[in-house]
Amino acid sequence: MRKLTSTPKQDGFRMPGEFEPHRGTYIIWPERPDNWRNGAKPAQKVFTQVANTIGKYEPVTVIVSDGQYQNARHMLNDYVRVVEMSSDDSWVRDCGATFVVNDQGELRGIDWSFNAWGGLVDGLYFPWDKDDRIASKMCELEGANRYRLDDFVLEGGSIHVDGEGTLMVTEECLLSAGRNPQLTKEEIEKVLCEYLNVEKVLWIKEGIYNDETNGHVDNMCNFVRPGVVALAWTDDENDPQYKRSHEAYEYLSNEVDAKGRKLEIHKILTPTPVLITKAESEGVDAVDGTLPRQVGDRLAASYVNYYTGNGFVAVPVFGDPHDELAIKQLQELYPDRVIEPIYAREILLGGGNIHCITQQVPETRK
Amino acid sequence: MRKLTSTPKQDGFRMPGEFEPHRGTYIIWPERPDNWRNGAKPAQKVFTQVANTIGKYEPVTVIVSDGQYQNARHMLNDYVRVVEMSSDDSWVRDCGATFVVNDQGELRGIDWSFNAWGGLVDGLYFPWDKDDRIASKMCELEGANRYRLDDFVLEGGSIHVDGEGTLMVTEECLLSAGRNPQLTKEEIEKVLCEYLNVEKVLWIKEGIYNDETNGHVDNMCNFVRPGVVALAWTDDENDPQYKRSHEAYEYLSNEVDAKGRKLEIHKILTPTPVLITKAESEGVDAVDGTLPRQVGDRLAASYVNYYTGNGFVAVPVFGDPHDELAIKQLQELYPDRVIEPIYAREILLGGGNIHCITQQVPETRK
Repeated sequence: MRKLTSTPKQDGFRMPGEFEPHRGTYIIWPERPDNWRNGAKPAQKVFTQVANTIGKYEPVTVIVSDGQYQNARHMLNDYVRVVEMSSDDSWVRDCGATFVVNDQGELRGIDWSFNAWGGLVDGLYFPWDKDDRIASKMCELEGANRYRLDDFVLEGGSIHVDGEGTLMVTEECLLSAGRNPQLTKEEIEKVLCEYLNVEKVLWIKEGIYNDETNGHVDNMCNFVRPGVVALAWTDDENDPQYKRSHEAYEYLSNEVDAKGRKLEIHKILTPTPVLITKAESEGVDAVDGTLPRQVGDRLAASYVNYYTGNGFVAVPVFGDPHDELAIKQLQELYPDRVIEPIYAREILLGGGNIHCITQQVPETRK
Repeated sequence: MRKLTSTPKQDGFRMPGEFEPHRGTYIIWPERPDNWRNGAKPAQKVFTQVANTIGKYEPVTVIVSDGQYQNARHMLNDYVRVVEMSSDDSWVRDCGATFVVNDQGELRGIDWSFNAWGGLVDGLYFPWDKDDRIASKMCELEGANRYRLDDFVLEGGSIHVDGEGTLMVTEECLLSAGRNPQLTKEEIEKVLCEYLNVEKVLWIKEGIYNDETNGHVDNMCNFVRPGVVALAWTDDENDPQYKRSHEAYEYLSNEVDAKGRKLEIHKILTPTPVLITKAESEGVDAVDGTLPRQVGDRLAASYVNYYTGNGFVAVPVFGDPHDELAIKQLQELYPDRVIEPIYAREILLGGGNIHCITQQVPETRK
């Protein structure tokens, strides 16, 4: 497949909303013992559950190293496709391709530079070269030509689009020193508009408290459909999340999207703060240069880190009193989709959630 | 995809002749410096030429390690698909899946046990576990369920079928001590009939002289179409190949295929004996357990190691006076296909030729 030097906007390609029809979903198998406790065995069980659940609704491809290939193949349902690929960790939302489509039904990929959420400034591990090659390999598998940005760092979890010209990001992430410090906010916005083919960028100030991704928007806020968003929320004034959510609400309430619409904002209460236990911390290998998982650390738990696919919404739950409310609210927001709650504490322990470990390939057929 | 416990014969699947329409072709990128001289750089150029040539006629997928991924991507034409996969060497004909189809248009794979042409008896390298996983990974990529034979060793280069019930093999290979010594010839034939869904096995005694594969049939004899074969030949009584070719001719002349047809046999003169030069030998790393490439060793050169695809025949040539005759004969045998001669000494130096480095996926559409 080809590496393209033009841009999606120039070529008439756009990124569809996640809620639009999918050709399928990618997931990367978790392995690294300095991030996933107990040799990643508990995480592999939950990733398997996520893959098997999504596979009921649309084709799922699981990316896995040669070393774990047979184990993954044995654990996953037959309807999941397993392909070998090297990676540094398992966050395909962030290192994988961002797919765009045109009106003629052609699929292309955007291959952003990936630097493990901050490179040598505040990245979470080193090196990250295998992760940075994932997007190009996904494009080959999908038969998609590829826009490569050698000089622009971005993760898929730091963007959400409505498919109709509007993009949502956070300043906390996109303006952080570990991403593109050589560019001004205006220059960054220009790149986003050119590659995602959008006209309006909504700049939420911050994401979820203590989110090691520098506050990815996908843990904080999501487009349910054009004009409608779900926002992580707390009414507890003593929670450091309070100010973050309230500022986002105020900002979004006073903005319009690319089509000039006011946004309908649905507040989704976050779970009771989730802290790493002693047992959970002790299961993680200590390796210099990898973010440690220390007992008592607060995890960036949020129901908004859900994944929307063909006829379903896969929602992380935590065994928390707020689980039920989140499920109820999401069912009301997505009346035509099956809500699939998955107990996801294990994914959260690794630093993200269901949305972070999935990447959609949009449907290109009409 | 599923691992099946039935057999292709039981399920109504057959292996089409190579000359039937293809969905595409697989090739593995050469790398190992203890088999390919000069860090495999000369071989990579020729493999690139083979892939680019076949890619003009049908989809080509090149399998490559993560370490060589970017180099392969840069060297190969855009229309070639590049996928990451671990391997021990680059002989997809032998370690890859053997694909079978049914009348309903379903594709399945046969995943024979692979032991590097003889395992601990007379195998060519150790270990071979990555190669043995290639077939299952190809099946996943093709969305094909898979027949796995844990207790039966076979390489794709040791079989040729006419697609109408006839199989050709050599006794030299299939009865060798490094393959399935626990089975009698009759038991081996039974497995072949069951998995390749054939009724008649033609047992040629020996393959090409000094062929390190224990005389694979694909270097010796091929089905041009049902009832017609091309046989490697020499008229030089002093050549150790003489007896091999003449015995095969006599055997085949007195046999009929599964449909009861006498075979039309076309003799293809082998090139003048090809010997390894000092420079060629010196470029190969010396590694214990890998077959050395010593100066003066005779290579198993044969034009019959050609590959037949959609509208073309890719033929190895050697800069030999017999090249022209072979091309002319093959053009007469394949009047509707373009003959694509490729200078293939570099592949031969690694131990095989164009047919050995390619594996077809049959077309399943009617």
